[in-house]
Amino acid sequence: LRLEEVLTEALKIVKPTKADESLLKDVIGEMENILRDEISGVDGILGISLEGSAAKNTWVRGREEADIFIHFDKNVPRDEMERKVIEIGFRAIKKAGGKPRLMYADHPYVEGVINGVTIDIVACYDVEPLNWLSATDRTPYHTKYIIERLKPGQEDQVRLLKGFMMGCGVYGAEIKVKGFSGYLTELLILNYGDFINVVKNAANWKPPIVIDIEGYYRSTEELLEIFKNQPLIVVDPVDMGRNVASAVSLTKLSEFILASRLFTSNPSLSFFKPRIKKPSIENLRELSAERNFLYIFFKLKEVKPPDVLWGELKRSEEGVKRALERLGFKVYRSDSWTDETESCLLIFELDTLKLPRFTLHRGPPIHLRTAKDFIEKWSGKAIGPWIQDDRLYVLKKRDEVDAVTLLKRELDLNRVAIAKGLASLIKNAKIDHGINSLIECSVDNPSMRSFINAFLNARPPFLSD
Amino acid sequence: LRLEEVLTEALKIVKPTKADESLLKDVIGEMENILRDEISGVDGILGISLEGSAAKNTWVRGREEADIFIHFDKNVPRDEMERKVIEIGFRAIKKAGGKPRLMYADHPYVEGVINGVTIDIVACYDVEPLNWLSATDRTPYHTKYIIERLKPGQEDQVRLLKGFMMGCGVYGAEIKVKGFSGYLTELLILNYGDFINVVKNAANWKPPIVIDIEGYYRSTEELLEIFKNQPLIVVDPVDMGRNVASAVSLTKLSEFILASRLFTSNPSLSFFKPRIKKPSIENLRELSAERNFLYIFFKLKEVKPPDVLWGELKRSEEGVKRALERLGFKVYRSDSWTDETESCLLIFELDTLKLPRFTLHRGPPIHLRTAKDFIEKWSGKAIGPWIQDDRLYVLKKRDEVDAVTLLKRELDLNRVAIAKGLASLIKNAKIDHGINSLIECSVDNPSMRSFINAFLNARPPFLSD
Repeated sequence: LRLEEVLTEALKIVKPTKADESLLKDVIGEMENILRDEISGVDGILGISLEGSAAKNTWVRGREEADIFIHFDKNVPRDEMERKVIEIGFRAIKKAGGKPRLMYADHPYVEGVINGVTIDIVACYDVEPLNWLSATDRTPYHTKYIIERLKPGQEDQVRLLKGFMMGCGVYGAEIKVKGFSGYLTELLILNYGDFINVVKNAANWKPPIVIDIEGYYRSTEELLEIFKNQPLIVVDPVDMGRNVASAVSLTKLSEFILASRLFTSNPSLSFFKPRIKKPSIENLRELSAERNFLYIFFKLKEVKPPDVLWGELKRSEEGVKRALERLGFKVYRSDSWTDETESCLLIFELDTLKLPRFTLHRGPPIHLRTAKDFIEKWSGKAIGPWIQDDRLYVLKKRDEVDAVTLLKRELDLNRVAIAKGLASLIKNAKIDHGINSLIECSVDNPSMRSFINAFLNARPPFLSD
Repeated sequence: LRLEEVLTEALKIVKPTKADESLLKDVIGEMENILRDEISGVDGILGISLEGSAAKNTWVRGREEADIFIHFDKNVPRDEMERKVIEIGFRAIKKAGGKPRLMYADHPYVEGVINGVTIDIVACYDVEPLNWLSATDRTPYHTKYIIERLKPGQEDQVRLLKGFMMGCGVYGAEIKVKGFSGYLTELLILNYGDFINVVKNAANWKPPIVIDIEGYYRSTEELLEIFKNQPLIVVDPVDMGRNVASAVSLTKLSEFILASRLFTSNPSLSFFKPRIKKPSIENLRELSAERNFLYIFFKLKEVKPPDVLWGELKRSEEGVKRALERLGFKVYRSDSWTDETESCLLIFELDTLKLPRFTLHRGPPIHLRTAKDFIEKWSGKAIGPWIQDDRLYVLKKRDEVDAVTLLKRELDLNRVAIAKGLASLIKNAKIDHGINSLIECSVDNPSMRSFINAFLNARPPFLSD
């Protein structure tokens, strides 16, 4: 397939039909009418606005959603603002026939699904740029900036870029992904003109990458000094002190660069539509043969905002990984998964599940006074001591060698840096190894099953065969 | 036991009785008479002399032996000298009723046992100091130097020091031991006066140690510069360019230092007479439980000089150790053994006998051109590739994980640096693990059994309990 053909086909995947579009506009129109009624006469509320991809015409087909912002006067206290947006949001969603849900990002907001469209009702303060009072105050300026600059046709280029990033697994600024936000894709299209020019440039990126559309900074050096240790720096045109790409991890950036390189050298629709195999239990068993896994599986006792939960999972994953390495295991890879409401899984691939029973312990050089203490300490308790070159050595005997048992003991002794919010859950979790017992946990859970499959395959979607 | 009591008891162990002494002197007298007859009128031979511990009265009880040197004119060619000493030596030993054996150190010599006394008949050139033509030419000067300087009573101090070093396993300059020669012990007594003063000083040694009895050098720095990387430097009073202690390994020096420290702080006869336990097979099995050994056992096809054989064994041990480490094993310890005539054993203690089936392989950073080659190379042949931070990784599958099989393959492919003289023997050796099959090799071989026991115990004699 040539590039043009691929892009034509890809556009069919990512671009909404006229019907999709009018459905979305209808739902938005209805919600806006309801909300205008709700806020009329309420003290401190200045108006509403449509934000996000619906406002900018950059949403991807099948991902119809609308962010409606309620603008508050800057003198309204934070708690009053939060109370009011919840109150109004709940009433409005109900009136439209939906089931309101309280959500939480930087501050609380209300979500509902109306005719298949996700509606988020969000609060912000009406402030001038750089006088931000809350994290959502920039959004109306982002929307305005993009709408004013996107030329006709560039909306579809944004859609292609988003679709490519979704297919490659790098789309989404949430902690679960640590990838690219919608606003970031729009800025990339503004900067490079169109989709193909973005990926052609990205194919040759060597991080750190710096993009300063408005030319706020004099030099790359200055930017790198200010945004230290950030692999991708895209200066926010609306706030020069902010990096729009601060959530992008080096891993996800690298995946995007590699996907871009592979796509430009060999364009294929598969980058937009990765084949997802549904593995049988036999497949999983084959894939896991002679490999060593340790996993931690537990059920949540309370619902929390996804970004909070994912942050706790990722921190705990890192803590367990470090504990296993301290114990003497090599951790080849690790990952976390949750359905965000009920089940959580941390999984680790190790070099071995059992450490050697004896381990070499190097003592002091024989000319030090401590040599005698070393001999007294270990005599009868270890193999040795013997002398090699100028030092004493013994072979220490481990009382326990099994990864699961050792990790459980470390957890009991509070020696593992796990997130406080998950500490008791992880201590009482099912900690085990072996693919069979893991498959047991994923019975009737296709999302978990496909995560396990992806972990066993250990390839990003664009490298799957 | 107080120090004086220990030394009194130790002296009983190391000092020959009057009967031992007169037996030795009788045998020597007889041999000297026979040899004087044999050399009379032979062209190029200037005379004979008694050398070694018998000449200096410093031999240890039970180790009666005599080195009788035949002095050649410096114009006699080397091959003629070698031919003549063999001829004369064989005839003389036979005349005395012994069975002559051809031996080899720096050059050939003849050995025989007469009335329980080992007699070595050795050739040297009669030259002035520093005009050495062969390695044995210094010996008469060493003997003369010691005899002229040892004061009455110091002979027994030498015997105590030799007995202590024998008990601690550090006596002997041969490659098998890499320890202290007899001449070196005599120089230490000359330098420090008596046994207890040697060990008191040695207890505080921190290598490198420099002893220059005749004060040939101006400074320690100069000496360290000339005798680089030698842990113990004792300048030969007879040849200032030679280090008498050049054969002493850092390990053996350290063992002597530690033994000296332990003896001075807690004198005991056990340093002179270590208790050697005779372990049962059950003991050996217990000692080896949950430990991992790999051994190489083979039989010699020809007899060679012990120092040649030991050198080959030690070099091969080191080569196998490096090969095992290159393969991914940790070699905790290793050692070699031979009866010097028939059987040889190399033994290695490892962390594990099986490597993990999968191993982490780090690829290039994704921004390099080689990233694509890496993906093509490994796709379908490994787990992954995946991206972590800015790099590609795969899990490579090992086709073979067993230490014995892997080592045999390396040997077949000539990838192990073993001594040429043992190459075919080691390639066809019994290479195995497991204490039972090792015990099989040592059936009817108490010397090998006690070596295995020492290796399993992994303690020098003075640290055994």
